[in-house]
Amino acid sequence: MSHNSFGHLFRVTTFGESHGPALGAVIDGCPPRIELTAAEIQVYLDKRKPGQSRFTTQRREPDEVKILSGVFEDRSGRQVTTGTPIALMIENTDQRSKDYGEIAQKYRPGHADYVYDAKYGVRDYRGGGRSSARETAARVAAGAVARKIIPGVTIRGALVQIGPHRIDRSRFDWAEVENNPFFCPDKETAARWADYLDDIRKAGSSIGAIIEIEATGVPVGWGAPIYGKLDSELAAALMSINAVKGVEIGAGFAAAELTGEANADEMRAGPDGAPLFLSNNAGGMLGGISTGQPIVARFAVKPTSSILTPRRSIDSKGQDADVVTKGRHDPCVGIRGVPVGEAMMACVLADQFLRHRAQIG
Amino acid sequence: MSHNSFGHLFRVTTFGESHGPALGAVIDGCPPRIELTAAEIQVYLDKRKPGQSRFTTQRREPDEVKILSGVFEDRSGRQVTTGTPIALMIENTDQRSKDYGEIAQKYRPGHADYVYDAKYGVRDYRGGGRSSARETAARVAAGAVARKIIPGVTIRGALVQIGPHRIDRSRFDWAEVENNPFFCPDKETAARWADYLDDIRKAGSSIGAIIEIEATGVPVGWGAPIYGKLDSELAAALMSINAVKGVEIGAGFAAAELTGEANADEMRAGPDGAPLFLSNNAGGMLGGISTGQPIVARFAVKPTSSILTPRRSIDSKGQDADVVTKGRHDPCVGIRGVPVGEAMMACVLADQFLRHRAQIG
Amino acid sequence: MSHNSFGHLFRVTTFGESHGPALGAVIDGCPPRIELTAAEIQVYLDKRKPGQSRFTTQRREPDEVKILSGVFEDRSGRQVTTGTPIALMIENTDQRSKDYGEIAQKYRPGHADYVYDAKYGVRDYRGGGRSSARETAARVAAGAVARKIIPGVTIRGALVQIGPHRIDRSRFDWAEVENNPFFCPDKETAARWADYLDDIRKAGSSIGAIIEIEATGVPVGWGAPIYGKLDSELAAALMSINAVKGVEIGAGFAAAELTGEANADEMRAGPDGAPLFLSNNAGGMLGGISTGQPIVARFAVKPTSSILTPRRSIDSKGQDADVVTKGRHDPCVGIRGVPVGEAMMACVLADQFLRHRAQIG
Amino acid sequence: MSHNSFGHLFRVTTFGESHGPALGAVIDGCPPRIELTAAEIQVYLDKRKPGQSRFTTQRREPDEVKILSGVFEDRSGRQVTTGTPIALMIENTDQRSKDYGEIAQKYRPGHADYVYDAKYGVRDYRGGGRSSARETAARVAAGAVARKIIPGVTIRGALVQIGPHRIDRSRFDWAEVENNPFFCPDKETAARWADYLDDIRKAGSSIGAIIEIEATGVPVGWGAPIYGKLDSELAAALMSINAVKGVEIGAGFAAAELTGEANADEMRAGPDGAPLFLSNNAGGMLGGISTGQPIVARFAVKPTSSILTPRRSIDSKGQDADVVTKGRHDPCVGIRGVPVGEAMMACVLADQFLRHRAQIG
Repeated sequence: MSHNSFGHLFRVTTFGESHGPALGAVIDGCPPRIELTAAEIQVYLDKRKPGQSRFTTQRREPDEVKILSGVFEDRSGRQVTTGTPIALMIENTDQRSKDYGEIAQKYRPGHADYVYDAKYGVRDYRGGGRSSARETAARVAAGAVARKIIPGVTIRGALVQIGPHRIDRSRFDWAEVENNPFFCPDKETAARWADYLDDIRKAGSSIGAIIEIEATGVPVGWGAPIYGKLDSELAAALMSINAVKGVEIGAGFAAAELTGEANADEMRAGPDGAPLFLSNNAGGMLGGISTGQPIVARFAVKPTSSILTPRRSIDSKGQDADVVTKGRHDPCVGIRGVPVGEAMMACVLADQFLRHRAQIG
Repeated sequence: MSHNSFGHLFRVTTFGESHGPALGAVIDGCPPRIELTAAEIQVYLDKRKPGQSRFTTQRREPDEVKILSGVFEDRSGRQVTTGTPIALMIENTDQRSKDYGEIAQKYRPGHADYVYDAKYGVRDYRGGGRSSARETAARVAAGAVARKIIPGVTIRGALVQIGPHRIDRSRFDWAEVENNPFFCPDKETAARWADYLDDIRKAGSSIGAIIEIEATGVPVGWGAPIYGKLDSELAAALMSINAVKGVEIGAGFAAAELTGEANADEMRAGPDGAPLFLSNNAGGMLGGISTGQPIVARFAVKPTSSILTPRRSIDSKGQDADVVTKGRHDPCVGIRGVPVGEAMMACVLADQFLRHRAQIG
Repeated sequence: MSHNSFGHLFRVTTFGESHGPALGAVIDGCPPRIELTAAEIQVYLDKRKPGQSRFTTQRREPDEVKILSGVFEDRSGRQVTTGTPIALMIENTDQRSKDYGEIAQKYRPGHADYVYDAKYGVRDYRGGGRSSARETAARVAAGAVARKIIPGVTIRGALVQIGPHRIDRSRFDWAEVENNPFFCPDKETAARWADYLDDIRKAGSSIGAIIEIEATGVPVGWGAPIYGKLDSELAAALMSINAVKGVEIGAGFAAAELTGEANADEMRAGPDGAPLFLSNNAGGMLGGISTGQPIVARFAVKPTSSILTPRRSIDSKGQDADVVTKGRHDPCVGIRGVPVGEAMMACVLADQFLRHRAQIG
Repeated sequence: MSHNSFGHLFRVTTFGESHGPALGAVIDGCPPRIELTAAEIQVYLDKRKPGQSRFTTQRREPDEVKILSGVFEDRSGRQVTTGTPIALMIENTDQRSKDYGEIAQKYRPGHADYVYDAKYGVRDYRGGGRSSARETAARVAAGAVARKIIPGVTIRGALVQIGPHRIDRSRFDWAEVENNPFFCPDKETAARWADYLDDIRKAGSSIGAIIEIEATGVPVGWGAPIYGKLDSELAAALMSINAVKGVEIGAGFAAAELTGEANADEMRAGPDGAPLFLSNNAGGMLGGISTGQPIVARFAVKPTSSILTPRRSIDSKGQDADVVTKGRHDPCVGIRGVPVGEAMMACVLADQFLRHRAQIG
């Protein structure tokens, strides 16, 4: 048991605080002979990296990943995994020597300050310490490795709602996602979001969001029954991301309003004996096992708790105190949640793939 | 790693098929010297038991639990746990000797039939075998034990939506939950649901639902950071229940539409230095750790896939086939999901309590 | 984490006390479509069953195993595993209604009585409760299933020493093992042991023993490095058997006296590029991974602690007390340890085989 | 499941190759508020460090440990653990740019070369890569942390046999262990070993050894039954150390030759109701649980496989090849095994202590 590990056969352990010397991940269970370079991992870290637009925190971190172990050249001279643990390290460089006195003494509402102090009796308060969303950099690095072991699978994420503004599903276009700072799958919506979020940002406020992650190319049979269900593990994975308050698969909460007739994903015979599904309310899984349809999951991210408007709180002595969070923050943390959600999906699928390969029950 | 186990320190392994000789659970990690009798467990099984009203399946199962191990009399003659594994067994009695020919050959939409065959190459098709919701009887039995090790905690569940019909939060009354066959926390709503569900039932149709589970009395500090978060483990637990398609904590998906100001659960100094929270959008946890507020989770259950209206599907030879599911089924499986959700909450909390007691990081 | 589970992918959880209603095992992770009947498991239980000769306890237990789940008929009508958990139950029948008053109050030296009371504050004292060697029946049942998933592997065990009497290695003949009540691989030695053990038995005494387990047919590459080493997992498995005080692999403790030259298992090119090893001091594994040579392990079993000669001890109130253990006991528990050791070897190999198949690092 | 992790609640994951950029450990589950500095860890690394005398390899590695996470100053300004993962890193500095051509192509007998290639199809051959005993530096670092969480426990190790030369138990003196380069608990024996080992070393040969580890101050009740036994976990821990071929507890293999009367550790009433044991054949544990007596374990280490005398082997193409291992090697790896064995004992005890504190069954 390990609070800082995720996965079973593809097992990721992360470490590190927001303002400590370094953070990173150790990946245990990666199969051997998979080509892997730091540059490939860096691509995904750069997507998550702060400071990419005015809509994310202005903290400047290169987030450069180093591979400390587990990769070596094969007989063809390619850098490949060796089957030994892959240790990845990202050194923290932008550790501003600012005065943390206030945050050290006051509990910011919506943050883990109070509960960490109550549970552990000590905390690294600098930038949120271990509870900082900075930890997700290690997840993204691990997710990049996970993608390499399920090469036929495509994992994509998009922001589908900011505050009350949802995208129009009929205009959903994956090709647009990389063309705007919101990972928004619709050009026009992205433009509207820019205006909306500028207002939020200038007001020193923040707003929630919903993210959708899709995996295509997953064959029938990945996943497991009962407590190892693909949906259960995805739910755990996505809910473990900072600020996430809800997870749904396929039709999700809307399934509560459907009749059995409407919810049934009917099937017709396909060319190779496999079914052609006529809908995908199940989000690509039944009984915890993939059906061959796209895996579809969504998760809701609460607004950043760090805002300029003073909020009532208490300090570490149990006295009333008002808190204003200055400094560099994301007006909508949901945006940078997109690559993190993709990474968690990748880790879950890599793990289930390896379990499937073992042919365990 | 075990697909049929749940929890870390309070670890539950379930076994059994819908129409096999027996199903049950082995609980490993229950502390010693806790008073425990089969009768106490039976109370919760009876809540989940089929055939309690016309709104659940008419299958008649006594669901009588036997304790095979782990309990012995102490020096006062009380039956107490001994610290050894507690094996619980529920024998299957209502195994109708009906012809399962059709279900053996055809894949019912929305059920796990197709994926089990694709993954395993064999399946116990009788009543859904292992993928039957009957497995949840073992969860409820385990949950009854879990409740005993966190005695100050009260766990309650209610059905808060059937199809499009939500309860009015202002009328929410826990005292009403036991007074109607829906676990509905409002008398008037329950009456309306009865009419609505009668129509569904008579039409041989089915409908989805949303369930809310609340735990009060959880002190600050249970839970763990990063991948062992209380929310993450609750999400996994609830999503692992048959037919569940979404899980949310506190404000849940609605948090996506909130600003940072509205979402912040402000605090004032309480009498003992602990904070008094002025709202509970967080659902009782921050950074994965309990705040001392009530733990609040909701989950969405899809409509029963077994309906009388024929649905298009394929058979085990990959040919088109229509499926009509006759027999005894729940028009709304969400109803019996309430005690199951409570049980999963109990198991998660018992596990986190034990981890907290170990004072591990 | 679970004190009562063993293995990772082939995961066995046992339950039950010596004189409770039943004991058993739940096997999670058995691959599907493996032919399995209760009769096949019974063969191994009968080898371990008490009362087979005058050299083992005269307790009469049929030790009849029932399969409660996880097996179903395939399309050919064969009983096969389905990939779901296999629950095995052995009901206790010979629960003599004798007075356990003495054993309930006094701590037998060499038994777990004192430590269970000190740790748990309560214990099922009847026949040793959970700490009874009766628990190994569940291991043997699980081992029988484990053997089925590694069909090319032959696992055999033999008693190679009783008290000071070792077998002569030059006379070692596996064919003799089934021909005497000691699992002794030499007819003449068996005859001498019979005389020796008769004296021990008649004196109400007991004696230790050494058991050797060999697995042939294991290909190169099973096992894992570092903490998942084949030797490490075998050591844990064998040391977990009641009364075991030592475990060694290959040359074992004798390796301490060898030079590097003598210890090196030299190799010559084999017909298919694989090495032919010229010796097997390594016991079939290097760096924790199988070499293709026979896997060889030995373990030492202490003498049964239950003897007729009074021993000084204390009672549950901390007062001096003398203990005489009457009743039915094994003069040499090592004998019945042979099928248990085989079972543990089978479980370890099945687990490593599945991990190897997953191709995890 | 993770091949590179050890422990359950006190969970250590190690990474790194002999000649890669760095090796290290991530410790998850260390309780908070424990004072910890890199200097404290360094003390133990220095004991294991190569090049301390002419009897260990002349490789020069400073083995300087850095703490990357998990430690922060508390309100008193002390560096303490925070409950978050403690990442420890040791950079490799003495990576000689020598030609590894020969070792890359030939399989050294007794090393993991052949099995790694057979299993993974690729290996980092430099200095043995991951299978190098250099990995044990990470164990020693983790063990230093483990010691801090069981402050009342004293863990000591000694070399008790080199080749055929055992120490005389009557001369055993823990105070001598630090006074000679062998961790030998007797001054005279150490002098004789120096002569003996000089001959071995000059001949380019090597020799095996036996190490004894003792833990005093462990109260009754640590450990767990069945598969979580203290003896079982110690066996796994010690057998996982490179080159170990046997493990025994208390009387160990000698128990095979004892009668029940001789083996029984009799008890008399102690001052506080706890027993005074009159002997310790059990090595401090019964039924897998500590008795309050000293924990005593021994393990046998085979001779270093790297020797100057040519040995017959094969190369990576399956052809006959002779191997001579030049370079810097330990004539008796058992010597440096002493601090490693201590570290593993510390990790096992820390883990069992935390489990005991959780009061899980």
